Amino acid sequence: MTAIPDALRPLLEAPAIAHLATVRPDGSPRSSPMWFLFDGERVRFSHTRTRAKFRDLQTNRAMAFSIHDPDDPAHYVEVRGALEEIVPDTAGSFSIELRRHYGKDPVPPDDAADRVVLVMRIDRVLGN
Amino acid sequence: MTAIPDALRPLLEAPAIAHLATVRPDGSPRSSPMWFLFDGERVRFSHTRTRAKFRDLQTNRAMAFSIHDPDDPAHYVEVRGALEEIVPDTAGSFSIELRRHYGKDPVPPDDAADRVVLVMRIDRVLGN
Repeated sequence: MTAIPDALRPLLEAPAIAHLATVRPDGSPRSSPMWFLFDGERVRFSHTRTRAKFRDLQTNRAMAFSIHDPDDPAHYVEVRGALEEIVPDTAGSFSIELRRHYGKDPVPPDDAADRVVLVMRIDRVLGN
Repeated sequence: MTAIPDALRPLLEAPAIAHLATVRPDGSPRSSPMWFLFDGERVRFSHTRTRAKFRDLQTNRAMAFSIHDPDDPAHYVEVRGALEEIVPDTAGSFSIELRRHYGKDPVPPDDAADRVVLVMRIDRVLGN
């Protein structure tokens, strides 16, 4: 894995909003805000099999996201990588862990049957 | 131009942080936080000719960005479109206008010689 500068690590460990970019089948980008969990090596997102970003990743596994510090937007991190694995989360356990990280009631999602974990490998970390 | 839902318009008019996604020459996405100005029709970003995103747009003009409401991250907007025009800003006048919108001292940037305005056409607006 790539080195992660110490100054940028807190942005990955906080319950921040990551703006995740994928590439649509027509080659244009898509960006949307997502919760995530960083385990020190990989980044996990909760998603469903029915959503657009999931379909994008079927044809192009490359992913990138950026996060800015709400208290100082000049402090930001950009992460590039790729989808490494899709893990079913039909019991909603990852979704619950994620809700806990963001200070929400740890209840399973209504759409648990379609829930998956997108596991992202990190290739490059930039920022300021 | 596409219709912009009234509930999402304030996110485009505020001095918010847009996470702009472009597609790199190798077909993978890039995401980075940017200031922007929305004139009711198009979105303008200040950029330089020397930066990576500018190079991305030479090969793929598609652009997308997302913004979340810092007070309520479930309130967000996703915008898709494409680079319509690149306007030189060597006097830094757009850069100054942008700084004013973000409550900063309206001084020209040090790198004005390389400054350009990326003018983005809006094709699609989604959000919540």
